Parts: sequence; structure tokens; C-alpha cells
Amino acid sequence: MSANPKFLAATAQVDSAAIQALPQSRKIYEQGSRPDIRVPFREISQDDTPTLFGGESNPPLTVYDASGPYTDPTVQIDIRKGLPELRRAWIDERQDTEVLAGPSSVYGQERLADPALTAMRFELQRPPRRALSGRNVSQMHYARKGIITPEMEFVAIRENMRIEQYIESVRQSGPDGAKLAARILRQHPGQSFGASIPKKITPEFVRDEIARGRAIIPANINHPEIEPMAIGRNFLVKINANIGNSALGSSINEEVEKMTWAIRWGGDTVMDLSTGKHIHETREWIIRNSPVPIGTVPIYQALEKVDGKAEELTWEIFRDTLIEQAEQGVDYFTIHAGVRLPFIPMTADRMTGIVSRGGSIMAKWCLAHHEESFLYTHFEDICDIMKAYDVSFSLGDGLRPGSGYDANDEAQFAELKTLGELTKVAWKHDVQVMIEGPGHVPMHLIKENMDLQLEHCDEAPFYTLGPLTTDIAPGYDHITSGIGAALIGWYGTAMLCYVTPKEHLGLPNKKDVKDGIITYKIAAHAADLAKGHPGSAIRDNALSKARFEFRWDDQFNLGLDPDTAKEFHDETLPKDSMKVAHFCSMCGPHFCSMKITQDVREYAQKQGVSADKALHQGMQEKSIEFMKKGAELYHKT
Amino acid sequence: MSANPKFLAATAQVDSAAIQALPQSRKIYEQGSRPDIRVPFREISQDDTPTLFGGESNPPLTVYDASGPYTDPTVQIDIRKGLPELRRAWIDERQDTEVLAGPSSVYGQERLADPALTAMRFELQRPPRRALSGRNVSQMHYARKGIITPEMEFVAIRENMRIEQYIESVRQSGPDGAKLAARILRQHPGQSFGASIPKKITPEFVRDEIARGRAIIPANINHPEIEPMAIGRNFLVKINANIGNSALGSSINEEVEKMTWAIRWGGDTVMDLSTGKHIHETREWIIRNSPVPIGTVPIYQALEKVDGKAEELTWEIFRDTLIEQAEQGVDYFTIHAGVRLPFIPMTADRMTGIVSRGGSIMAKWCLAHHEESFLYTHFEDICDIMKAYDVSFSLGDGLRPGSGYDANDEAQFAELKTLGELTKVAWKHDVQVMIEGPGHVPMHLIKENMDLQLEHCDEAPFYTLGPLTTDIAPGYDHITSGIGAALIGWYGTAMLCYVTPKEHLGLPNKKDVKDGIITYKIAAHAADLAKGHPGSAIRDNALSKARFEFRWDDQFNLGLDPDTAKEFHDETLPKDSMKVAHFCSMCGPHFCSMKITQDVREYAQKQGVSADKALHQGMQEKSIEFMKKGAELYHKT
Repeated sequence: MSANPKFLAATAQVDSAAIQALPQSRKIYEQGSRPDIRVPFREISQDDTPTLFGGESNPPLTVYDASGPYTDPTVQIDIRKGLPELRRAWIDERQDTEVLAGPSSVYGQERLADPALTAMRFELQRPPRRALSGRNVSQMHYARKGIITPEMEFVAIRENMRIEQYIESVRQSGPDGAKLAARILRQHPGQSFGASIPKKITPEFVRDEIARGRAIIPANINHPEIEPMAIGRNFLVKINANIGNSALGSSINEEVEKMTWAIRWGGDTVMDLSTGKHIHETREWIIRNSPVPIGTVPIYQALEKVDGKAEELTWEIFRDTLIEQAEQGVDYFTIHAGVRLPFIPMTADRMTGIVSRGGSIMAKWCLAHHEESFLYTHFEDICDIMKAYDVSFSLGDGLRPGSGYDANDEAQFAELKTLGELTKVAWKHDVQVMIEGPGHVPMHLIKENMDLQLEHCDEAPFYTLGPLTTDIAPGYDHITSGIGAALIGWYGTAMLCYVTPKEHLGLPNKKDVKDGIITYKIAAHAADLAKGHPGSAIRDNALSKARFEFRWDDQFNLGLDPDTAKEFHDETLPKDSMKVAHFCSMCGPHFCSMKITQDVREYAQKQGVSADKALHQGMQEKSIEFMKKGAELYHKT
Repeated sequence: MSANPKFLAATAQVDSAAIQALPQSRKIYEQGSRPDIRVPFREISQDDTPTLFGGESNPPLTVYDASGPYTDPTVQIDIRKGLPELRRAWIDERQDTEVLAGPSSVYGQERLADPALTAMRFELQRPPRRALSGRNVSQMHYARKGIITPEMEFVAIRENMRIEQYIESVRQSGPDGAKLAARILRQHPGQSFGASIPKKITPEFVRDEIARGRAIIPANINHPEIEPMAIGRNFLVKINANIGNSALGSSINEEVEKMTWAIRWGGDTVMDLSTGKHIHETREWIIRNSPVPIGTVPIYQALEKVDGKAEELTWEIFRDTLIEQAEQGVDYFTIHAGVRLPFIPMTADRMTGIVSRGGSIMAKWCLAHHEESFLYTHFEDICDIMKAYDVSFSLGDGLRPGSGYDANDEAQFAELKTLGELTKVAWKHDVQVMIEGPGHVPMHLIKENMDLQLEHCDEAPFYTLGPLTTDIAPGYDHITSGIGAALIGWYGTAMLCYVTPKEHLGLPNKKDVKDGIITYKIAAHAADLAKGHPGSAIRDNALSKARFEFRWDDQFNLGLDPDTAKEFHDETLPKDSMKVAHFCSMCGPHFCSMKITQDVREYAQKQGVSADKALHQGMQEKSIEFMKKGAELYHKT
């Protein structure tokens, strides 16, 4: 039940499940303005449309890809070496950082010197990098100086998802290419609640959003391995996956596997919430192997350093922890600086009190000392650390509701208002900020959270946990919260923190991680569609087309989880021949409903008129034709 | 792959999983104005609050219970005999029906006479009952005559969920009972979009809603086994589970098991969508053993009678099928009478054409004959059959969208408008009606569906499939659709038809049925909460209280699926002692966040003041107290 004592650095291996290409998928890269800006995508190839349905070819579809080099068969993965330093040259070129001799945190030095940790330590310890004295290395700082960084350009290319290139390939795919492209690109106008997403994301747009504080690119200079991504209401809605061991279980290996598993299915960032032994070492393994930004809650580790006695926490211990983690490369810190002393009594009549771990630690500290939180009083000191490494704030909602009963109460909104004040302080320092949000909120109270967040925090990205829309389904809180996540994403939340089926019950295993990720990919995508994010309907349209044309494999492969879709299909219709069957396994051949429109269209085509016209012109004739054909199409089994 | 040839009536047995009581639960009955109105509920007992948290007792909570006599250990279940005829006396007393000598449908007579079916036939064939000539036996007819039927009173008691009695028991539970009752009863004011749900449902209110057409009680006189339930926007949101075999698989036994499994987890009605062999016999087994209303799509069976050739369907064959099924006891029929000839060309440019099976059958018929649909032209003839047995209409949405692309299009809304016209025709005959809705709709287009339905159909109950909010997640369409279902339920949909993970891929097995049911119970309950349904937050509050007080077993048992919750918990903390652990398995003892508020409250209680006051008055003193206690509470493991 403790951290696995058998984990040895020397024999650590990548999870074989993480390095398989997804079915019919290949890794492609889109180059930017310089050869070292290579933005990864996944390209899913498709079968031709069966002759019966028109016979056209269906060019491969490009989708956003968070999985990093793992799914690139040309990259040799060795988790003992870590990932390549994609951003190293970009950081070097800016000439505003120095490479230190070693960790500057006391704790970091201690851990490095401890021979008992040698066997489990990530071997290739790279000396940390820090801003030169007086310099600010945050993406926001560059953005405000008018500089478009390679990170920003990378993000711009990534957000565009190669839509133009894909649509062009559809246009060129055959005589009806232009018509087909128009169909595939068509989507309903959205309802964006004030988000304004351009048709094409330019690097300048990214810069402007970062400068404005409306988006962030979490990108610690000590995490050069990341493929930059953006979090903001005018970008694709992102999702975060929480991993981390506790005193009660899970080993370093398992956590690295959870990370590679989470990004395989679409996790855009990963939070390492470890609270057990070897937090430092676990984090090093995760960061060195993570192509996505890593977030942490530094107070967890600070608490371990005082043996779990919240009242013994000090600013000095916390500060050392921030530096320790910043020098490892953590990209964003959850800081519960909004849990102020006067707010704590507001939670006294709650049903479930304070449910945020960080929030409760700070509340305990405040009560024990009868003093204002050191996170609040030292907030500008924290900003100084953040900008020396470009760590982004994730201002924690320590007073979020832990039940629908406590939703939208005085304590919660008092904290939110404080987070708004702190946002402006951070922005004064050009430090990137996002704001954490609830929690447990019934559907009709969700919008108030978004509206107040936009108002108080001046459009700094909102990053919410769920929210869970009911409390009566332990074991299914990925679903109770997926509903709330889709809604708040639609209203404007920039990143959705997943909830797994194990929420409130236990530590998620790999299956839970995947269930959480897929549920949240659904919520995020449903939000993109509802906001009217340009091009977001393309994948839906391509999959629907495949579905209508009985291209079973394409239907599986274009989906979020091809493996499960195929497995489910094969339970009912296991034979390969059934993958080309022109009927659904639900209904059987007699009851296939998808065929009727095809009959109409086929008839129309023969007549050389539009389907609509054909039906109006020649219904009578059609009925004879139809009967003849019908007898063929619906033959008995 | 065909219907299981081994199914034998003589050896048929109830699924042993269906007759277990749920953990810490017992069946109770609330008596109405007469001894034979006994409304079933499930009562979940709870542990006392641990002394540390106040030590109060927590009276058992009553929840709505769709599972029928199966979960009553005092009832001997033998599926070969079927369930007791709960409503028989009520129907008899009305003296408006006659018992026929045998089935009056040609097909029903044929099946009964076929010796090849003897071995699988449900043995105790009861002669069917029909309205006396010229009489109308619909609940709507009685309601409009001002009669409160036992069915209506039953529904009123059921909808109130014994809230008054439960709250009274909390009030009486101890010295702080009144305060506790106020807490448990507290809920946020809802946003109902025009629904107006009274604080207490009276039998007269039920009658009025039925008379108005705003609710229905599906209750065929040939299904006296049902425990009446209501579907309407001013009642609790209900869910339907689809079961049914196809030509490709599943046996009678499996379908009966799916029904008992579906109601165990909360299915309010069940649709038997069988399309394979032995539809008639399968249905008989299901109805005789179902305490919930059963719906069907009669056109499926009619099509089997013409060997799958839609163009050979006739009004006479369909009519005989309606009578056959009405005399078996089907409570509602999906009738796709809105698929009119002129609407079919409107589907020509769709991405996924016509995806409703019934819709495609009728579209094929219309095209083949170039004639208006016989369902539309014979609609009043159908009404005559419906009122002779009290079968409710579920007016089918044969032109619902099969992809987000096709959502809210001309064809869909043309059909909806027609369904509105047909609603008024049915109401002219005092026949109960609900309206089926989509389908595949992005979030921001869902409300238009509800608004137009209310407008065209004059508040007749809406009964929607999902809707699915994105098309990119085959294998997870219970979730893509659960999001849409919660939303449309909030907006006013009265019943949500579940979607299982197998949607688009295969036939659901029992696991899929349960996943679909739980997901939809969540969606329905989230909708009730958002609408502000009186008392709907009680279960959430009770569970949140249990969660805060670390009553693990209560947290499991008050949830929708105690088995899964317990199983998940035990994966991380398997020992029984951990069920009383005062920390979560997610965080371990150091990181338990739930304890802080308790510390505050405990302190306040000792001071004899409110928690809030205590904190303001004696912060300094508290801090000393707190540190002492903190050291005790957060001991090291």
C-alpha cells in the first residue's frame, strides 16, 4: 500500500500501450516559420466511399494530438532519457536566462545528495535554468513587449488543426470535391456568450490574447520538452487529467504510465497531485517524459515537509518548495491565495465545509495562527518566483463547494472576488494566470459562476473541476460532472479538469483515467460545437458521413476511442465481413434505416437532377423504380 | 445468432440478480384512500452520525422505486405466473369494459393456435379486455369527466416520495431535529422555464394535468400488473430503457432479464423494440412480468409480417397488429404518423438521411406507393383503437436528425408541427399523447427543440432520445447524449429515452443497460434539481451529509448504484475498518479536507455559540484550542 519499493530507475520502461499508433493513424508535423517549429498532428486515413454511396475518396482527416512523440514510430522512446528538448533553442536564443550550477532550493539540493534515492532517481539531472537577475521570462511579458515567441506561433498552428489543408485536400479529391468540402465544413452558427474566436488563429492573435491575459501558454523554461498549448476562451476548450500517488498506493512507474496514458487519449495538461513519499522524484520522472504542461499544488509537498502539521507551515518552507518545483519544470502552480482568514467563518454553516485539500490546509493554518494566509501576504513574492521561470498561476478555489447544497455561497464568491484582485496583481508582474472554479453546482447555478468569474477576473482563463450537477451518483461522477463541464465549457471555461469514476471513492487506475479523459474530451468538444468554434464540426461531419455510408472502420477510427468502439461492435457482429455490412448490428438487415435516403439520392442521380427536384418531378416514376430496387436492397437473410 | 431455440416456458426463471434487496434497503408501501392503493417505495436506512460529528440519528430516507415486487422479499416471484394484477379491481369497478373470449386480432389468434409455439409460450393466457362498445377507457377521458381514478391517486402519492413523512421523522429524531430537517430540505430555487410544480402533488392536480394533456399515465387495461406512473413536465423527470432482440441475437429469457435489470436501477418505462422472431411471445413474457409501462413500435412487427418488404405494408395489417398488441397490454405505441409524403424530399440533402427505423419504413412505403402515409390518413381510426384499451400515443419522430449536421432542419420541424396537429386530433378523442424528440443536436440548438415542441404540441409531454451533443464518440454515446438529456430535461422534457454505450455499434447487454440507466437517472435528477422540483435536493443533501461525516456505507447506499460505489472504494481501501475511516482514500489521512469545518463547529458548540459567532468572538482563543486538537486529529499513520 506504500510507494512501490521495487521501482528502479535503471529498469524503468515506457508503457508499451503508450507507444502504439492509433488505428489507421500516423503522426504528421506542420512546419512553421522556422524548421524547429514542427507542430504535431494525428492524421486518420479513411476508406473510399462504397460505390453504392457515390464511390468518392475521403482524404485523411487531421486531428489535434496531445500524445507527444510517443505515438511517432520514428522516435525512439526511453523514459530513462526523457523526451527531446523541443524548446531549448527558443529559450537559449532569448538570452535572458542563466543555467545554474544545480538546484537552488534547499530541498532540491538535499534530495540530490541523498544516496538512498539514487536507485529511483531520474538519472540525467539537468541543471536548472533561471531568468537573469531582473529579467522576466514569462510568455505574457514577451507578448506585452510585442514579441511573438516560437511558442505562440506553435500554438497558432496547432489551434488551426490544419483545417485549411484538409479542406483543400477534400476539394481536390474528385469532381464533386468542392461540394463535398462545403458539406464537411458546414456547421451551425454557435452561441458563444461573448467569446470571439477568429476563423483562423494567427500568431499575432495568440500574442494579443496572452498580452491581454485572456489566454496562457503554460511553459516553464525548465520544461523544454513540452509541445506548447494555449488555454483561453478563444481557443479550443482543453482538458486536464489529475494523476498522483498518495500515502496509500501507487508507484512512480504507475504515475508515469498514467501520464502517458492520459495524453494518449487527449489530456492537454496533467496535474501531478502526489502526496505520498518521493513526491520530488516522481515529479522529475513525469516532467522529463511529459510533452504536455504539468501542474502541481505545491502546498501538498510543503505539508509533507512538516509531517502533515499544517500549523507548522511557513512562508520559507513554501517558498523553497516553489523554487524546488519551478526548477524541475512545473508549468503551473495551484496557489490557494484566495483562502483568506475572514472567509473561513463563512463556511461554518456549509453542508460539506471546505473540500479543497489546499484550501483546508490553509484554513487550518489561518485558524491556528489567527493570521492572514501567507500565500496572500506574500503574493508578490510568489509572483517574483513565477516570472523567473515562467510558471503560470492557477489560482486555487480553496473554498469551492463540496456539495450542491454549498454551491454559489458567500464563501465561494468572496474567494472568487479575491482571486480577481490577485489576477490583477499577477498581471502587474506580467505573470500568466488562470482561475480555478467549482466543484459541485446544480445546472441552473453554473452560469452565475462563469459570469462572475468573467467579471471579477477580467476574462483570465477559467479552469473548472466539473462541476458535478448532482451528488447522488458516487461511482459515476465522471458523468455527473461531465454534464456540468460541457455546460461551463460552452459558457466560456477554457480548461476542464477531469473527474474520474473513482472521485470521492478511491485512486483512479488506468481504466478510470481513460474514462475520465474520454468523458471530458466529449464535454470539451460539445462545448466547442456549441460555441461555434470554427471547424469544430468537421470531425463530427466526417464521422457521420462514415456512419451513413457504413464505413465501419472509419466510424471507429474517427471517434475518440477506436478500440472500444470496435470491441463493442465486434461483440454483436464479430466477423470481418460485418465491417462492410450495409446495416447496423442494432437493427439487422430488415430494419436498416440509413438506406432510404441513399435510395432517393441514387434515383436522383440517375435522372441527372437534384434529389429534391427528382422527387417533386417524378414521384410516380420513382415509386416504380423504388419498388424494383427495394426488393433488391432489403433481401431476406 | 437467432432467437435462442432452447428457451422453454416450463423452466423459465427469474434472474436471481433482480430479486435481491438493495443494500440497507427495504420495500415499504404507502396506503392511499383505500387498502388496495399501496404505493411502493424504497427505504434506505442510515447509520447514526459519529459522535465526533454530533452523534445524531439519521432516519431512513425514502426514494422513488421503479423495481416493482421484485425487490420485495415477501413476494414470491415466478415469472411463469407473472405479476399480481394490481389494477384489476380498479378496472372492474369502472364497469366500462368487457372480457373477450380470446384475442380479436387475426395474428393473435394464429399465434395462440400454433402448436410449435407451445413450449415457449407464456402459459397463463388471460383473455383480453376491451372497452364496451362506444366507451372510452382512457385516463384522459376519466380526467376530463372529473373522475380521479385510483391510478391518479397512486401517482400523486408516488410523486410526493413520502417527503413529508421523512421530514417529520427527521424533525422527531432528536433535540436538533427541526434544524436538521431544515438543512436536509433546503434547496436552491430552480429555473423551471415555465414548468410549475406544486410543493405537494394532489390527486386532483394529477387529474387536472391529465385532463389538460400535460401529463399521461400509460396504463393499458390489459396491463393490470403495472404500478401507475406519470409522464409530464410538472412531475419528476422519467427515463425509458429500450430492450428487445433482433434477428441477430438475444433470447426471450435475456429480454425479460434486461427488463427486470432495467427497472431495478430505475427505468420508469421499458420499450420492447424486438424485431426478430417470436416478437409476440417475447412481448407476452415481458408484459406479464413488468410493473412498469411497456412501449412498442408496432410497425416493426407489422414489417415482419410482410417479410421485411415495407411496400407491402397495409393499413389492415397494421391495424391487426395494433389490436394484437393492445390486447397483450402494451401501454404506449410509437406511431410515426408525422412522416408525411411531402416531408421526405426535405431529407435529401441530409448528412445521415432518415435514421429512425419506423420513419424509414414509412418513408419507403410512401415513396413506393407515392401516397400519403396510412398512419396519417388513418389516424382517427388509430385513435379509436387506442381509447378502447387506453393505449397512449408516443408520436414518433421518424425524421429526427441522425447527426449534428442534420439537427433542427426543415424536415425535422415540419414533422414536429404535424405531430402538434395530430396531438389535437388525439385529444379530441380523449386519447393520451406524448411526443418523441431527437436525436443528435449540439447543445446550443437543444432549447429550440423544446420551445417549438411546447408551442406546436401545446405542452403534451416531450419524450426525447438523448439528444447526443456530438457525434465523435462511438462507444460513449450514453455520455454524449446524457449531457443533452440533462439539458432538455431541465428545459421541460418529461421523459428521457436512454442511450447505451452500444448505440450505433451493437445490441446492449446487461452491463450496457445498467450504464445507460444510471447515466439517465443522473440526467433526469440533474434536471429535477435545476427545475427546482420540490424535495429533489433531499437525496443529494443526505448523501453529502453522509460524505462529510465519513459514513462510507451510507454514502454508497444513498447513491444510485451502491454496488459500484462500494466496489470502487474497496479497490483502494479494502478493509472493513476503512469504512469508518475519517479520511478519503483519495487523499489519505494527512490530506483530509473535510475535517476542518468540523473542527470549527465543534469548537463553537463547546462555547455554546453559533460557529460564525464563535469565530468572530474568539479567534485568538480558538487558535490555541485548534492547535491542540489539530495535533490529535491529524495524527501520523
